[in-house]
Amino acid sequence: MQFSPLVNELIEALRRLPGVGPKSAQRLALHMLQRDRDGARRLARALDGAAERVGHCADCRTLTEEPVCRLCRGSHRDRSLLCVVEWPQDLVSLENSGAYQGLYFILMGRLSPLDGIGPRELGLERLEARLDAGEVRELILATSSTVEGETTAHVIGELCRARGIQATRLAQGVPMGGELEFVDGGTLAHALQGRRPV
Amino acid sequence: MQFSPLVNELIEALRRLPGVGPKSAQRLALHMLQRDRDGARRLARALDGAAERVGHCADCRTLTEEPVCRLCRGSHRDRSLLCVVEWPQDLVSLENSGAYQGLYFILMGRLSPLDGIGPRELGLERLEARLDAGEVRELILATSSTVEGETTAHVIGELCRARGIQATRLAQGVPMGGELEFVDGGTLAHALQGRRPV
Repeated sequence: MQFSPLVNELIEALRRLPGVGPKSAQRLALHMLQRDRDGARRLARALDGAAERVGHCADCRTLTEEPVCRLCRGSHRDRSLLCVVEWPQDLVSLENSGAYQGLYFILMGRLSPLDGIGPRELGLERLEARLDAGEVRELILATSSTVEGETTAHVIGELCRARGIQATRLAQGVPMGGELEFVDGGTLAHALQGRRPV
Repeated sequence: MQFSPLVNELIEALRRLPGVGPKSAQRLALHMLQRDRDGARRLARALDGAAERVGHCADCRTLTEEPVCRLCRGSHRDRSLLCVVEWPQDLVSLENSGAYQGLYFILMGRLSPLDGIGPRELGLERLEARLDAGEVRELILATSSTVEGETTAHVIGELCRARGIQATRLAQGVPMGGELEFVDGGTLAHALQGRRPV
């Protein structure tokens, strides 16, 4: 590396970003220093502000700098529906679909004992307290369709069953616009199993 | 967007990076907030430090926080050789080749009148002063092999000619390991033109 210490430090810090290798870290650093110092300063402020002040919503655990996030405070949501997702970005995808009007609970991960992610890390105690509060009539399990996601859904399903609360799981099947030729066998098996009369 | 204001601000700031679209900005922001707050703080500090303190070397114009960069201060370099490149990253490529022991002059761009990049923006006055100082015997034109790069090389070549200083241009030809089948016609034409006895 033939850059000065501060430039090298910037390149190293950028390399910690996911998907950024040595070459692109160099490209990003030099771009900002050569052409967009305002952007660099703005990014520094945004990183600092977010890293210091963004925490978790007391109700749903999503990332927010407020004690309770806007969505949980919203008066127009159906409070009897609770959708459990793994990450804040899953919430955003569901909101963008426009098809859901209930509340959310964000696990911030999924059960993965080998990585030290257990019920405690996912805030399941808080979820249980919420189920015990009696407002939730249906809990929608929207964890990912992976082994860990299914395990997580199963465990949370059991929490619901113990309280007589209905638990449902997102339907699995052929994605919209999906050509059967390119849909994997596991998905097709689910789609067949879940077939519906027309 | 269903994120809180601070998270949105971070996503927007990340979008200004080259090659980062809305989806990857979101992915980077959430990764840092969910899994690497230390990395976020470190990046904020690095950005701030570099944006505030990195300037240009008084001799070669490369990016550095020191008045004169380490390479220009180095006593083991051949001061009669001056290699002109467009960007600091070009200097790094040449240094990594290990084949050059002279000094550099970094234009921080190339002539492009339509973008408002003229001799002044490239620091050609400073380059002329350096040529006038009498230390440089040979100037190596290592600007890029594009129309603007060639124009820039031509203009700087004229500055040398006016002072009786030898100007040379990097050889153009088949890259090492290059299969002729996949080398473009322009490169092959240059390689033929520049052929050498074996």
